[in-house]
Amino acid sequence: MEKTTKSNFSFQLVSKDGSARAGLVTTPHGAVETPVFMPVGTQATVKSLTPAQLDEIGVQIILSNTYHLYLRPGADVIQEFGGLHNFMNWRKPILTDSGGFQVFSLGNLRQISDVGVVFKSHIDGSIHQFTPESAIAIQEKLGADIIMAFDECPEPHDRKYNEQALARTHRWAERCLQAKSRADQALFGIVQGGIFPDLRSQSAEFLTSLDFPGYSIGGLSVGESKEDMFAVIEVVTAILPETKPRYLMGVGTPYDLIEGIRRGIDMFDCVLPTRLARHHAAQTLHGRINLAKAEFARDHSPIDPECGCYTCANFSRAYLRHLIIAKEMLASTLISIHNIFTLTSLMQTLRKSILEERFETTAAQLLAGLEKTL
Amino acid sequence: MEKTTKSNFSFQLVSKDGSARAGLVTTPHGAVETPVFMPVGTQATVKSLTPAQLDEIGVQIILSNTYHLYLRPGADVIQEFGGLHNFMNWRKPILTDSGGFQVFSLGNLRQISDVGVVFKSHIDGSIHQFTPESAIAIQEKLGADIIMAFDECPEPHDRKYNEQALARTHRWAERCLQAKSRADQALFGIVQGGIFPDLRSQSAEFLTSLDFPGYSIGGLSVGESKEDMFAVIEVVTAILPETKPRYLMGVGTPYDLIEGIRRGIDMFDCVLPTRLARHHAAQTLHGRINLAKAEFARDHSPIDPECGCYTCANFSRAYLRHLIIAKEMLASTLISIHNIFTLTSLMQTLRKSILEERFETTAAQLLAGLEKTL
Repeated sequence: MEKTTKSNFSFQLVSKDGSARAGLVTTPHGAVETPVFMPVGTQATVKSLTPAQLDEIGVQIILSNTYHLYLRPGADVIQEFGGLHNFMNWRKPILTDSGGFQVFSLGNLRQISDVGVVFKSHIDGSIHQFTPESAIAIQEKLGADIIMAFDECPEPHDRKYNEQALARTHRWAERCLQAKSRADQALFGIVQGGIFPDLRSQSAEFLTSLDFPGYSIGGLSVGESKEDMFAVIEVVTAILPETKPRYLMGVGTPYDLIEGIRRGIDMFDCVLPTRLARHHAAQTLHGRINLAKAEFARDHSPIDPECGCYTCANFSRAYLRHLIIAKEMLASTLISIHNIFTLTSLMQTLRKSILEERFETTAAQLLAGLEKTL
Repeated sequence: MEKTTKSNFSFQLVSKDGSARAGLVTTPHGAVETPVFMPVGTQATVKSLTPAQLDEIGVQIILSNTYHLYLRPGADVIQEFGGLHNFMNWRKPILTDSGGFQVFSLGNLRQISDVGVVFKSHIDGSIHQFTPESAIAIQEKLGADIIMAFDECPEPHDRKYNEQALARTHRWAERCLQAKSRADQALFGIVQGGIFPDLRSQSAEFLTSLDFPGYSIGGLSVGESKEDMFAVIEVVTAILPETKPRYLMGVGTPYDLIEGIRRGIDMFDCVLPTRLARHHAAQTLHGRINLAKAEFARDHSPIDPECGCYTCANFSRAYLRHLIIAKEMLASTLISIHNIFTLTSLMQTLRKSILEERFETTAAQLLAGLEKTL
């Protein structure tokens, strides 16, 4: 199939099965087999895990947040270290978001204009401004392999606001392309438009005309229905070029991953596996398990007998429950290892099924085993 | 030199240099080269570290606390799992204390008699009793390779109390020997007697007459002066048999480790490396570093350029400070790895110097580099 190259970045569509795709993203820090789940390292650390542990899990690429790193430790500090890879000692690919989603999530702490967004730091209340130009400049200092355009993230059901915001997001996308100066980073455009198929179509078409090396779908998994989310994904992936990777932002339940891949998505990220771990919940392909429950006090079995992760190979539910009850940090570490491994190996399973042209069978079996749509 | 064997446990005195000793402790879970520093896994976890990380650091043996495990998750639970090694997935030797020190530290929450100690749980206020017999029974359920006699731990400067307590500790030592039923665990006697050389002599002589496979020195590093501590160690090690290991309980600063080894100590434990890590302090052989300080915000160097640990090989002081300021759990993990590695490799350095008969030179160089007596 076709191959698109832009500087050091390329995407190869290796195989298709229905709309599901197996691909290969190549970056200056190595290749990523898609579909891929990216764990989130908000503050230059995937919470409670060392880079060595992420490597052992089989993580290929992580995401980090521009908003948080800009505030702390500051983009200049990270630039001084030669970028985020050196700073946090993660030698594989990194993707940064633009800060857009975070500053729009600040609610009353921010003000929007065509110039950009003025916002108050959630840490100390200090005043800052992100513009398309500054969001790119900061991401160039951070030095991730894949960076994001600065976009506006409106409430998905508000038609009028979405129309206005989309026009601005498109103007900002052009300014981001203009502002970009590093050849070794791939800038993705972000499709917006809320739950409205016509706005989403318009956005996908406009951004495709700008010829980004990859496309994100933003503004989903923020409270809309599953039907609305999947309808939007179908509209958008039908328009986006086959030769570019598609990244569905902020999505990370097994159900949504499977349904996203079925509709042609290649990349996903979510804080869910590490956040669940800190709240004592283990993610399996048969539902979530609250390991704090008394019923696990003497349970000799691992979280998931079918799982091949370090945690399941070595520790019982009883031990994990003991760590939780005793408020030991190791609980978060061990459950995070399991949760990320679960999603990482789910991606490998689905990729293999695409290569072997049996995606629908595999997906149906997996979906039947899931508890509801989690 | 001589070798003492008691069931599966043995101690071989490999070499002496002055009073400093290089030895080999053999247990059912493998051998331990001495002198050795044992990290503390109070609640069946060395805080924030996986067993795989402890292995990589080079840790040979860990300590765990009977008092804490008895209360949570309960000795029966751990016995059901075939003991602590299985429960926490640590495959190398384990030493458990008797709970004595912890229950005596409870102050007003406990009552002492010849029978034992009645105490209130620090967790829920429930009432419990430890006796010499129950302390052994619990440790047999936990299944450590080396277990401790149940002793009374008085304030070290109170002569009258120490006389009474010592008589009781000696009676309890005999009861512990009587109560012991497992052949695959080595029971150490604990020398007490506060800061009083004559009481310490009396205790060392009495316990030696009971022929334990190893001896602990308890009740030190609890507020007495360095002079008193070292004087007691000298009195005791002059009496204890050369053919048995000597374990100085609760000691873990580089200064005290070096001075302890110089006086014939083989084994040490302390919570200090992991506790310091949780309070942002890195231990080096040139003093402690508070990594939270602003001066490290852009410091590219590792904690210690001469250190060979995972943390120093891969992370800067600036990154560690960032994790601390951002309240990220990974800070504790990475600093704990460094702190335990520092003490573990200090022990290896000193063992080598003993084998090569240059202990005093090595000790003098190390002591000259230390900041004060930390």
